Amino acid sequence: MRTRFAENLDSLSGDLASMCRLSVTAMSEASDALLQADLELAEHVIDVSGELDDAAAHWEKRAFALLALQAPVAHDLRFMVGGLHISADLHRMGGLAVHIAKIARRRHPDHVVPDEVLDVFTEMGAVAVAQARETEQVLQHRDPERARGLLTADEAMDDLHRSLFTITQAEDWPHGVQSAVDITLLGRFYERFCDHTVEIGRRVIFLETGSLPEQ
Amino acid sequence: MRTRFAENLDSLSGDLASMCRLSVTAMSEASDALLQADLELAEHVIDVSGELDDAAAHWEKRAFALLALQAPVAHDLRFMVGGLHISADLHRMGGLAVHIAKIARRRHPDHVVPDEVLDVFTEMGAVAVAQARETEQVLQHRDPERARGLLTADEAMDDLHRSLFTITQAEDWPHGVQSAVDITLLGRFYERFCDHTVEIGRRVIFLETGSLPEQ
Repeated sequence: MRTRFAENLDSLSGDLASMCRLSVTAMSEASDALLQADLELAEHVIDVSGELDDAAAHWEKRAFALLALQAPVAHDLRFMVGGLHISADLHRMGGLAVHIAKIARRRHPDHVVPDEVLDVFTEMGAVAVAQARETEQVLQHRDPERARGLLTADEAMDDLHRSLFTITQAEDWPHGVQSAVDITLLGRFYERFCDHTVEIGRRVIFLETGSLPEQ
Repeated sequence: MRTRFAENLDSLSGDLASMCRLSVTAMSEASDALLQADLELAEHVIDVSGELDDAAAHWEKRAFALLALQAPVAHDLRFMVGGLHISADLHRMGGLAVHIAKIARRRHPDHVVPDEVLDVFTEMGAVAVAQARETEQVLQHRDPERARGLLTADEAMDDLHRSLFTITQAEDWPHGVQSAVDITLLGRFYERFCDHTVEIGRRVIFLETGSLPEQ
């Protein structure tokens, strides 16, 4: 028979996966809003971001109650401590998606992303969403082997990020400083979003195996 | 008589303040390296950043052992949970100082900061260091009233950050795209550094009073 405590842990674990789904949706919609200069979608991402704020706060409150009442040890304690970090990472991922949506909103009806970097941002959005979807699966199944895959999959994002600098800093960049500044910030937000998925991968490995991979 | 557990908590608390001192030094030196295009100092910031990595990992390991062995509740549990977040914030603050030092190193012997924004960056460095010093005091004394001061003191940083955009995006900005991109990233690193001190202020209020202020 499952104990009440085990049920609580399962529920907390499932909630991390649900929070990750919210960040997948936020990033997917923010990327679409950016690429299509879709104001309504950008505003939707910003409007619903409170859901992830609330979910993260609620997660932490429940984890705290469980720590106080059940005093877990070993694997269960690692899950709670790791989960606190993971919840903070997921929360931040949602925040980064909101930052992207806000740049799309600020420049509307102009397109933020000029043709020269449209492919790069299309790819960055796809990588970010794919990496967040994989993170959701890792959280769902708490599989350390699969989590290890998250640790290297952000290299594609790093390459894309570097290519942005090459393009905007070329002599013949035709769109001026404001556009380059927007692109720099956007690139940074996508890169950081993926950094958090890597961090979650490390945490899942820690909570399942007891050792934290090097950064 | 102080219990062994209380001594351990005091030691963990003191270690958060020590980690904060490392981040003060890192930010102070990174800012000097940036403003003076001082390669040696930039490399020093980068070389010693492992100290803060190690301190954060060590902090978490000890907190974990104490959670497992002592099963703290109420205030002591809030301290442990809050401390895990604070340790992560301090670690990240060190990382942001390293990012600043790396930009100074990449452009050496050129100055990254042109005259037009020298005052802004001088002020950003001063605000960041002052805010981190105040954070160290807040951690040392765990004073929720003083922590409340951290929550608003980053407004000065936000104003400085906004002024960078105004200057680099003006029609007559003479330094081109690469300089504007560097300045954008630097501005973001300073702003995020201060965001983490605000987050630490919120956490100290939570661990001392049991309620987390709104973001």
